[in-house]
Amino acid sequence: MSQSFMERALELAKEAAIAGEVPVGAVIVSSEGEILAETRNRIVELKDATAHAEVLAIRGAGARLSSERLIDCDLYVTLEPCTMCAGAISFARLRRVYYGCSDPKGGGVEQGACFFDQPTCHHKPEIYGGICETEAAQILRDFFKEKRE
Amino acid sequence: MSQSFMERALELAKEAAIAGEVPVGAVIVSSEGEILAETRNRIVELKDATAHAEVLAIRGAGARLSSERLIDCDLYVTLEPCTMCAGAISFARLRRVYYGCSDPKGGGVEQGACFFDQPTCHHKPEIYGGICETEAAQILRDFFKEKRE
Repeated sequence: MSQSFMERALELAKEAAIAGEVPVGAVIVSSEGEILAETRNRIVELKDATAHAEVLAIRGAGARLSSERLIDCDLYVTLEPCTMCAGAISFARLRRVYYGCSDPKGGGVEQGACFFDQPTCHHKPEIYGGICETEAAQILRDFFKEKRE
Repeated sequence: MSQSFMERALELAKEAAIAGEVPVGAVIVSSEGEILAETRNRIVELKDATAHAEVLAIRGAGARLSSERLIDCDLYVTLEPCTMCAGAISFARLRRVYYGCSDPKGGGVEQGACFFDQPTCHHKPEIYGGICETEAAQILRDFFKEKRE
């Protein structure tokens, strides 16, 4: 685990907020420590309900490696992945997932579907939560507070 | 429900099989009965683990309508959506999902995560399974049989 990758993901989350998107950022890193994709939510911009940071990162890294399987690659993401993204992570065969804060309302890893613990999940990455949790949560809180004002 | 849309999805599934992809086809239709997207699995072709027929259909229909929310639109898909696609369907606010055969190993609607029944699911479409089930299942059986031979 390298904190610098999560710091990059946090920067991307802040860019998302500025663009009016729910602030989530993601980075996919090869086993050699090379960044393969750096993404953020682009749902509103792309008019695409599936354009979560994680899905865009998986797509980007797949294009970069010319493979739909991201063997030995790790994902850093500022928020607990939702159920859709947990499914995408499993299909992409990511090795490890490092995430920032939990998402009690929409998470798919620790809550609700708990997808990686289901018998219909055929690849479970190693999961590490709470990485830079305070800052990750603050970015989201600031965004929603501003929206309500 | 119009069976002709599922028949079109079945044709797309057959095209997927010819291209060497797991044969799943999908069609998204507006409330006026206009086809907004016609897609099939393109995972191998696009080197994209998320390129399931449903995700591509949601992306295509969003681009067509210039909205990430596919209000009052219906999805026809030949196989029970997986957990990733169930999440995508919910985010896209699709009105109804008509699907062909069940997927005991990887489905996310009736099995495993049963995503639409989770408290973390914030939009549940109407769901109708078993549409053209026999043909939908046969296309998949033929594909995997040929792969094993």
